[in-house]
Amino acid sequence: MDQRPIGVFDSGLGGLTAVHSLWRILPEEDLIYFGDTARVPYGSRSREAILKYARQDVRFLRSFDLKAILIACGTVTTTSLAALQAENDLPMVGVVEPTCRRAVLMTQNKRVGLIATAASVRSGAYEAALRRLDPEVTVFSRACPLFVPLVEEGWLDHEVTRLTAQEYLKPVLAENVDTLVLGCTHYPLIKPLLQDVVGPEVRLVDSAITVAEQAARTLTEMGIANDGRSLPTYCYTVTDIPLRFQTIGERFLGRSIQQLEMVKLG
Amino acid sequence: MDQRPIGVFDSGLGGLTAVHSLWRILPEEDLIYFGDTARVPYGSRSREAILKYARQDVRFLRSFDLKAILIACGTVTTTSLAALQAENDLPMVGVVEPTCRRAVLMTQNKRVGLIATAASVRSGAYEAALRRLDPEVTVFSRACPLFVPLVEEGWLDHEVTRLTAQEYLKPVLAENVDTLVLGCTHYPLIKPLLQDVVGPEVRLVDSAITVAEQAARTLTEMGIANDGRSLPTYCYTVTDIPLRFQTIGERFLGRSIQQLEMVKLG
Repeated sequence: MDQRPIGVFDSGLGGLTAVHSLWRILPEEDLIYFGDTARVPYGSRSREAILKYARQDVRFLRSFDLKAILIACGTVTTTSLAALQAENDLPMVGVVEPTCRRAVLMTQNKRVGLIATAASVRSGAYEAALRRLDPEVTVFSRACPLFVPLVEEGWLDHEVTRLTAQEYLKPVLAENVDTLVLGCTHYPLIKPLLQDVVGPEVRLVDSAITVAEQAARTLTEMGIANDGRSLPTYCYTVTDIPLRFQTIGERFLGRSIQQLEMVKLG
Repeated sequence: MDQRPIGVFDSGLGGLTAVHSLWRILPEEDLIYFGDTARVPYGSRSREAILKYARQDVRFLRSFDLKAILIACGTVTTTSLAALQAENDLPMVGVVEPTCRRAVLMTQNKRVGLIATAASVRSGAYEAALRRLDPEVTVFSRACPLFVPLVEEGWLDHEVTRLTAQEYLKPVLAENVDTLVLGCTHYPLIKPLLQDVVGPEVRLVDSAITVAEQAARTLTEMGIANDGRSLPTYCYTVTDIPLRFQTIGERFLGRSIQQLEMVKLG
């Protein structure tokens, strides 16, 4: 039993979809969220820039006494998880492994689609994990750089978003995939629209849910889950309070963001 | 006569459209371009974050011996130009003033539309300048946060961009404007599409051209233009070399980017 909080971080606010899942799956845990809103988005930056930012993010989060860190960001996980794990002596859960495990369980025809940021697709991390978990799986990937700005604009059920999804997904669907990995924590907000575009035969894998479930397994296996004797607390830290922060934050979280603190990275 | 280079800067690569105009209008001048590609986009960040970043950008540019600085960024100009001018003892040209001058010359019915980033619209700087230059002008503004990612995706003549423009411009066009200010240096790349959406009666004002013309006037007035005895040199500095940098850069510049250097802000 360990009552210390879990740190959750993302390049911006997308990781709040994982917080939303954590509330359901690990309702006893205290959470400290960190979003690097002053430098979001990471998804089209160089691998070097992302790793540098991710290291600063983890260093900041570790200024709290945490029992584990959940990387609620596809881009950071795909480019930097291995380095961050090697450098830090606490459990770190990323989105790739649990999401790929779910995908290989779900696929029947062994043809899996992956949509994510440009940096995530370029890293090849999802493909590598899927093929390691099931060498018979074939992966069809597509970077979708417009999904993050469309979600932040709030066009969750908009004709523009639908057209964009049709364009991005056309080559992936042409490959007859039966499973589609949503490899970025922004994408759960357009899940209904994506389901509509891919049709009922294709099953979506939501990385915001799978990463929260993996966190629960890790805490249980290590015996460090919280026993829930006190009410959990949630604290949100960001590097900038951008325009429309509350609106966008509530969209991800499903409730308003309280206990918000703006921080400076050292 | 002053042979020192002009510094040109933007939050990212959008300012290269101004470089493109400078080549035509001031072909004798040496240019040093700086793009803060590690932290782009600025357009939805807080005013405080933008000012902080802009100060770091200018400090970096001033490590070169420059005769003037051209702020080829709507967001930096609208939020930070006054502060930057007060703190620096060299001529600084921003996009707002020359663009608004052109707009009040062009409008017949005194109804002017403005499209820009969220930070620029919120600053009210374009409206204030337009009303100062002609108190009879009425301004109708609209933030267009998706235009920058659409331009960077290269969807310059795409149905998605057209639909997005129709949606953003609908309330502005309903006000019967006869002139539309493109208040962000990314927008010139979708000028043909925008002209199509607004129709032939509405005239577009391109800030990437007006700012270059203003730079030419400033240099002439101050007697610090270059006499063109040697071939001009161009140097590009950025804080990150993001994915697809060359493709996107060439799109803005109309030619490939050479003499590129990655720099670290102090």
